[in-house]
Amino acid sequence: SAMDKDVVQDYEYPDLDPLPSKIEPEVIPPCDPTADDRLYHICITVISFVVMLILAVLARRMKVGDRQKGLPGLLSPVNFLDHTQHKGLAVAVFGVLLCKLWGLLISLNPLPFTTDTANKRENWVILGVFYYPALYYPLLACGTLHNKVGYVLGSLLSWTHFGVLVWQIIDCPKTPLIHKHYSLFSSLPQIACLAFLSFQYPLLLFKGLKGTEKNNATEDLSSSYYRDYVKKILNKKKSTKISTDKPKVPQRITDAVKSYIYTPEDGKYIYLGIVGLLLISAVVPSLQTARLGVTEDVANILAGFRIMLSPDKREVVRIVVYYMWCVEVCYISAMTLSGLVNLAMLMRSMVLHRSNLKGLYRGDIYNVYNCQRNIRASRPALVCWMGYTSFTAAHICIGMIIQTMVFFLCLLIAVFLVIIPVLYRQNLILFQLLWSMWPFWLMLLLVVLIQHITARFCFIKKAGGTRDLHNRGNLFLLTYLMFPVNVLIGVILAIWRMIITALFNIVHMGRMDISLLNRNVEAFDPAYRCYAHYLKIEVSQSHPVMKAFCGMLLSVGQERKAGQKSRDAEEGIQLVQQDKKQNKVSSAKRARRHWQLLYTLVNNPSLVGTRKHFQHQTTDSFLNGSLNRSSREESKKEATTKEAEAAASN
Amino acid sequence: SAMDKDVVQDYEYPDLDPLPSKIEPEVIPPCDPTADDRLYHICITVISFVVMLILAVLARRMKVGDRQKGLPGLLSPVNFLDHTQHKGLAVAVFGVLLCKLWGLLISLNPLPFTTDTANKRENWVILGVFYYPALYYPLLACGTLHNKVGYVLGSLLSWTHFGVLVWQIIDCPKTPLIHKHYSLFSSLPQIACLAFLSFQYPLLLFKGLKGTEKNNATEDLSSSYYRDYVKKILNKKKSTKISTDKPKVPQRITDAVKSYIYTPEDGKYIYLGIVGLLLISAVVPSLQTARLGVTEDVANILAGFRIMLSPDKREVVRIVVYYMWCVEVCYISAMTLSGLVNLAMLMRSMVLHRSNLKGLYRGDIYNVYNCQRNIRASRPALVCWMGYTSFTAAHICIGMIIQTMVFFLCLLIAVFLVIIPVLYRQNLILFQLLWSMWPFWLMLLLVVLIQHITARFCFIKKAGGTRDLHNRGNLFLLTYLMFPVNVLIGVILAIWRMIITALFNIVHMGRMDISLLNRNVEAFDPAYRCYAHYLKIEVSQSHPVMKAFCGMLLSVGQERKAGQKSRDAEEGIQLVQQDKKQNKVSSAKRARRHWQLLYTLVNNPSLVGTRKHFQHQTTDSFLNGSLNRSSREESKKEATTKEAEAAASN
Repeated sequence: SAMDKDVVQDYEYPDLDPLPSKIEPEVIPPCDPTADDRLYHICITVISFVVMLILAVLARRMKVGDRQKGLPGLLSPVNFLDHTQHKGLAVAVFGVLLCKLWGLLISLNPLPFTTDTANKRENWVILGVFYYPALYYPLLACGTLHNKVGYVLGSLLSWTHFGVLVWQIIDCPKTPLIHKHYSLFSSLPQIACLAFLSFQYPLLLFKGLKGTEKNNATEDLSSSYYRDYVKKILNKKKSTKISTDKPKVPQRITDAVKSYIYTPEDGKYIYLGIVGLLLISAVVPSLQTARLGVTEDVANILAGFRIMLSPDKREVVRIVVYYMWCVEVCYISAMTLSGLVNLAMLMRSMVLHRSNLKGLYRGDIYNVYNCQRNIRASRPALVCWMGYTSFTAAHICIGMIIQTMVFFLCLLIAVFLVIIPVLYRQNLILFQLLWSMWPFWLMLLLVVLIQHITARFCFIKKAGGTRDLHNRGNLFLLTYLMFPVNVLIGVILAIWRMIITALFNIVHMGRMDISLLNRNVEAFDPAYRCYAHYLKIEVSQSHPVMKAFCGMLLSVGQERKAGQKSRDAEEGIQLVQQDKKQNKVSSAKRARRHWQLLYTLVNNPSLVGTRKHFQHQTTDSFLNGSLNRSSREESKKEATTKEAEAAASN
Repeated sequence: SAMDKDVVQDYEYPDLDPLPSKIEPEVIPPCDPTADDRLYHICITVISFVVMLILAVLARRMKVGDRQKGLPGLLSPVNFLDHTQHKGLAVAVFGVLLCKLWGLLISLNPLPFTTDTANKRENWVILGVFYYPALYYPLLACGTLHNKVGYVLGSLLSWTHFGVLVWQIIDCPKTPLIHKHYSLFSSLPQIACLAFLSFQYPLLLFKGLKGTEKNNATEDLSSSYYRDYVKKILNKKKSTKISTDKPKVPQRITDAVKSYIYTPEDGKYIYLGIVGLLLISAVVPSLQTARLGVTEDVANILAGFRIMLSPDKREVVRIVVYYMWCVEVCYISAMTLSGLVNLAMLMRSMVLHRSNLKGLYRGDIYNVYNCQRNIRASRPALVCWMGYTSFTAAHICIGMIIQTMVFFLCLLIAVFLVIIPVLYRQNLILFQLLWSMWPFWLMLLLVVLIQHITARFCFIKKAGGTRDLHNRGNLFLLTYLMFPVNVLIGVILAIWRMIITALFNIVHMGRMDISLLNRNVEAFDPAYRCYAHYLKIEVSQSHPVMKAFCGMLLSVGQERKAGQKSRDAEEGIQLVQQDKKQNKVSSAKRARRHWQLLYTLVNNPSLVGTRKHFQHQTTDSFLNGSLNRSSREESKKEATTKEAEAAASN
């Protein structure tokens, strides 16, 4: 926003007293920074390799002492399935990678090693796509060991990256490529990410020295988040006050606004927002380019429109400059609008994702997917899960480009056909056109009014609490006579439908969590299909109850100390044993339990919808359903035990 | 289709031996038909007025003898709410009106009375919009009295209209306006409709003379359709065989194809199909116009593309002519394709409408609307019901225009970038572009393959009937390393999403019965909103059970004869009395009934979803629900009785 202001000031209504001659493009000589990019990359690659070696040696030594850490831990950068962990490092590295990818696709010289740029450029791009993740991997790996040496190495590495980049930018602030400030703009998000890393590693080192850092191995499972979730479920009273009357308008507006504001519960999705902001900054340079192009061609475009500006030639040049300024303001407004729209969409997306997750934790599958789905890990689900973050980034990028184009066009039309004509009271083409058709608009309005009034007062009869049709003969006559006029109204409706559909889809282009298609063919939307699969993995692998259970199991196995932890564990074991006992209950007890289930369901019909078999719409009886449920619970328990074992052996 | 063939033959690859010089536009002199349009309209208006007077006198005389018919009947053209009635006459008149509306909007001289065409054209259009329904009203009114004199007058009137139109076309087959065959093409659907009327009235007269015509007054209610519906409901056995396994692929394909084929049950929606066909024919002239425009400009367009055709000038002209022919074939193909698509959509729409109606008759509101709605007559519902046919016509029209444009563009791209280059092995621009990027495509393909293969074999472990994640560390590492490549894949997905969404919406533009928006904001689609309201009126005013009940009541009141009818009525009365008795049952019996309801619902959980109160998701118990239901039934019964009284007094 600060940058936007700056840009707007840069293009504020120009002082027109000295007649502007033909604008000369500023000649920028090619600039070689003191820190040569090629040399820097060779050095940093070697340094990164050495850092990785040191970390590996460190990891092997630590493995002897502590079973939890070691080489496998070094090769597993972030636990993407852990929603309690702070993912700041990962977000920053992903941000840097995204900027590098943008640079790869835009620049003529994708990798700094090569000198023959024109030849085989696409092969270097492919290499770069795999080179950059490997290059920045040590920045992540230094944090995985939770070791002071790792933090020191991480600090040094991130300072090096940050320092060299800033040095290069100060050396060569302007480039001949695309736009004079291109290099600066495209480096801004990258600098921000590296600055964050350079700040975060010393902070971690400081925490590690003071001993306030949490124990990593069980950080995920021992987090209070899961235990709190389970306690909340167990303590939850049935909310008896369900208001059936409609909420009032101010309340509804407040609710609608609230549904777009994301209040982070554990800071778990905030990184999505950062990715979004990065993207907004990353797209800026391309827009700057387009704006420059507009500046040069706008005179010809206006001439093509044959708009009578003025008989005075000096005046014409002034007006053209003014129009050019308008076009630029339109472009920047469109860009800002599209950025704001995407931010709002991202917030809404995160709110919806959280409610989807909570719904699926409750087993409310039908409400989320609108059909019955099997929530478990599968091949396509896993592939979609792996690509989800990248796909979101790509969709927001493409969405922003399209939105900017469409908004720019709309703003241009609004400015040149509505605002400027109204301000200067000339060239009121649109208004003249609409005004010349006033009898037509009046007729349509009158016909709609007549239909509404007659429908209200002549054809609907209220009597005895019910509404019924009345005067059917006249209704049919009016329907017949209004047929041609209604066709014309239908044409307006069809155009309105087209506009609203296109606008909705363009605005929601960046959101993968809703389908842009009709509810019956939702799955044909590739983005929504991917999100649906992604949700499956997220829910099946990180159900808070399961995690709380695993945490209890682990805390029993690892440390048999007295106090708080032990009591929790005992509770867990008691729960398990009770559960086991219940599986061996007599048939009489089972019958009683089925009866209780039946009674509960009959008294709470709204619970029926959340039961698994109901959504199949089969004719299974409730008894079968409860058997299904217990077998499913058993399989889940199995999985949970395995999960706990896996975590323990990790 | 016959016409399409003709057009294609007309533009088959031209014989190129004589070098085509510049195509001279054929000069067509303005033509005045012997039957002057102005004189004809003045005469036919007077004749129509006289016919209406005769019919009114006839109606007054009939009113004395028979209470059911008369002046109100004359002024109520068709019972649009009666699904059993044959609506051939109404469809034909609506078709003529639609053609006249098209003529009004296109021609320079909207009404034939006026000579000062240039002045105040739009006012004459507004007048015409109301004039034509009034002019063709007698054609409908002659059929409403079900009287031999009416049929004779109708035959004469329709023959006059038909004869004069055909005479005018034979007199002046070619017009200077738009296209030489424009007048012929635009008159074809009109001629078809008038021919249908000219055939239908003598047929009705013949039936009336032979006495085989059904009695009109009770035609709607005494139709066997409603009684059969009720009998089918009462006889229906619960379908016990519900297959839970997925249908096989051929079965699913057959089902999908079947869901697009409309098998008319009572011929009730066939008129929609006719409207569609009319529209297809009505749009043809405008396409012909556009094709002519293309023919003239195509040489310049090709020159603009700077496509090297040949060094020989004679050869260049030949190739240009060939390309022009290609463009025209593309246009006709696009037009045909769009027509076929709309036909399929219309069929599908009718199938869906029938299933929606049946679902709502059963009370299955949630499945149809995806939310709870109040099914009863209201002001907006009635206004939407009045305009529905017109809106459908307008939407199909606009949809066809957009579809034709889009398909034409796609076909042009396909022909000029794919088919012609492949056929002649030159200008393979697209293929060269794709081929030069082969390492990129190969990389994307390999990455996707690797992700799928590793997901299947490394990261998912099948054990004990469940699937779980495995090798989490490596999974996270792969996710990190593939981030930039997945962004590129995401860009392709985003483009694919855009294409598929746009194509879906364009193809379904003409369908009002589905929303083009996401399932949560369906109501913002104006067309779908209108359809939802329309359905309310249709369902609330023409429930077959209610109609069957009304029919029984009427047949009791009117004719107390022995035999079939009397028995039906007795059955009806018995049913009513049983119902009344049940309302006064003791509390013991009510408790038993509630118990039976409970038992049924517990044994058939799939029925719970169809119950009204369930969809509110409130915590009402089943007992409250059943009370709700009985009160709703009572109010419906009230409405039914009123309806029957209204019908009896009509």
